[in-house]
Amino acid sequence: MQLTKNNLQEKQTHIYDAIVVGGGAGGLSAGIYLQRYLLSSLIIDKGKARSFWMQELHNYLGLPSDTPGRVLLQRGKEHYASLDGDFLNGFVEEVRDEGETFAVLVKVGRQKSIQAVFRAKYLIAASGIIDYLPPLDDLRNVYEYAGYNLHVCMVCDGYEMTDKKCGFFAGSEAAIEEMVFNLSWFTAYITIFTHGAFAVNEALKEKLRNHGYPLIETPIKQFLGQNHQMTGVELADGKIIELETGLISMGSCYHNTYLKEMNLELKGGNLVTDKMCRTSHPRIFAIGDLKVGLNQVIIAAGDGALAATGIWREIRRTRGARLWSKNLLKEQVED
Amino acid sequence: MQLTKNNLQEKQTHIYDAIVVGGGAGGLSAGIYLQRYLLSSLIIDKGKARSFWMQELHNYLGLPSDTPGRVLLQRGKEHYASLDGDFLNGFVEEVRDEGETFAVLVKVGRQKSIQAVFRAKYLIAASGIIDYLPPLDDLRNVYEYAGYNLHVCMVCDGYEMTDKKCGFFAGSEAAIEEMVFNLSWFTAYITIFTHGAFAVNEALKEKLRNHGYPLIETPIKQFLGQNHQMTGVELADGKIIELETGLISMGSCYHNTYLKEMNLELKGGNLVTDKMCRTSHPRIFAIGDLKVGLNQVIIAAGDGALAATGIWREIRRTRGARLWSKNLLKEQVED
Repeated sequence: MQLTKNNLQEKQTHIYDAIVVGGGAGGLSAGIYLQRYLLSSLIIDKGKARSFWMQELHNYLGLPSDTPGRVLLQRGKEHYASLDGDFLNGFVEEVRDEGETFAVLVKVGRQKSIQAVFRAKYLIAASGIIDYLPPLDDLRNVYEYAGYNLHVCMVCDGYEMTDKKCGFFAGSEAAIEEMVFNLSWFTAYITIFTHGAFAVNEALKEKLRNHGYPLIETPIKQFLGQNHQMTGVELADGKIIELETGLISMGSCYHNTYLKEMNLELKGGNLVTDKMCRTSHPRIFAIGDLKVGLNQVIIAAGDGALAATGIWREIRRTRGARLWSKNLLKEQVED
Repeated sequence: MQLTKNNLQEKQTHIYDAIVVGGGAGGLSAGIYLQRYLLSSLIIDKGKARSFWMQELHNYLGLPSDTPGRVLLQRGKEHYASLDGDFLNGFVEEVRDEGETFAVLVKVGRQKSIQAVFRAKYLIAASGIIDYLPPLDDLRNVYEYAGYNLHVCMVCDGYEMTDKKCGFFAGSEAAIEEMVFNLSWFTAYITIFTHGAFAVNEALKEKLRNHGYPLIETPIKQFLGQNHQMTGVELADGKIIELETGLISMGSCYHNTYLKEMNLELKGGNLVTDKMCRTSHPRIFAIGDLKVGLNQVIIAAGDGALAATGIWREIRRTRGARLWSKNLLKEQVED
């Protein structure tokens, strides 16, 4: 059921088999599997998963390639609800390991918010990544194009940028080094924008020149375009650069601060997991963008199945096999 | 494009970036990703992937829980075709490693079949598992119920069997040992059928008795029911056992004979892979049910994304970054 400020009291005494932090593709898939394994689960979602911003999912097997990410999320939420899973909109502030259970502290409600505590035997961390967007004065302007022809993920949308005049909006020198030369797999017509926010070293400048990629350090005034189709940018000095597509790489952060006390093993910021998505803590699983791997919706969904199955196997082993109830057995024998 | 006996001649001189053996969920997802990475790919499908038999996919994020497996496959095939991937109905008989490329020998056509040879830099083995069904005289009878309330996968459909009178149709002693006591997670009302095809040792018999699970060794004459709903079985001696659901575990085999010469690392019959689904051969990837892991459609689809990305990264590194064409650059500078 959907938990709200009004009905969450009774659930605070319940011990869930698993609490899933994050209601994106990974968390919803985990929830669907958990409920189908007859386990009790609670998904706590802060809202607006990364895939919420995807205007078109182009590479998710089984969905038409213009399916918005939010449609996938909505369907997943309905699917999970149909299996009687509990869902709460809230922000997980802290997780405490109590030995047999975890206590999960949640802030519920934006206004007059209250704090609630839920408990579970297992935790699935599925809270993913939060992307930074360009620090422009007029942020509304970015949202008009982001997810349409102004892309956030090269792996997801490189195909849509093929051989187009592409603006690469970088948040750091490292982003230029890491991304631009790979982006050239899809298009060689790349113009790099720093927005004047950081310096670019001379060696990198020369490398860009040698590849023929213009570097523009003048701040951006605004994106240009209409009907969600970005056609270029206007710089602070009034100059207009025409573009057909763009890739934003302003950086991102992992939404995993609530796990800080757990001291989980990390690799480059990502949680290290085994083949079943179990972290270095035996009762904490991590799925999707939080863990080491490839950040793709279909992979996060598969991860959810793995983590839920890992938890089910362990709980199942603990309980052991059930006996056929004597009465029913008698009836069967007499047949 | 769809290749046929009539148009496959020209493609036999082409070197694909990757050939995918198997057009199930894993193979189609890999194909979609490969094409979107601007790589050339060919999927070779023998037809009727395991998911083809699933009447209802209950746990695939984004699809209504009554979506037939064949609908997922059909959509995937259309998606792949829309990206100009090549698809061939055929049976892969052998793969030869030629150093830089693989030669893939395919039998095309059931009648008047011809042999064709295709070449690729990389191979993705996605040919999965073939399930055995019970060796009954009247096999049609099984197909009327298989995939409806007569299930093949406990992980997929355990939920549908919850607390129902369930027939477990075993193909071996080992299947009983491995499955029955786990199946009791979902229902304790289990009757085991051996069809008289193998002996059950005394210790196992006693264990079943202690759990209250009847063991029936009399051969089965036929499944009973109507409208795809199995209601029981009739035994050879005329006795009728009423059931509400069933699980078939008659065994299965990996469809990987074409890889025999490659001497890939195996673990219990499954191919061992790394996190990107690469086998012990650097240019062969394995995805879905062939590899070590959990046999689930959503996981196979995620595997396809991983393998395709692994191949793309390697080919991309080999080619290096592209330069902005001089003319276009000049035009841009003059702007």
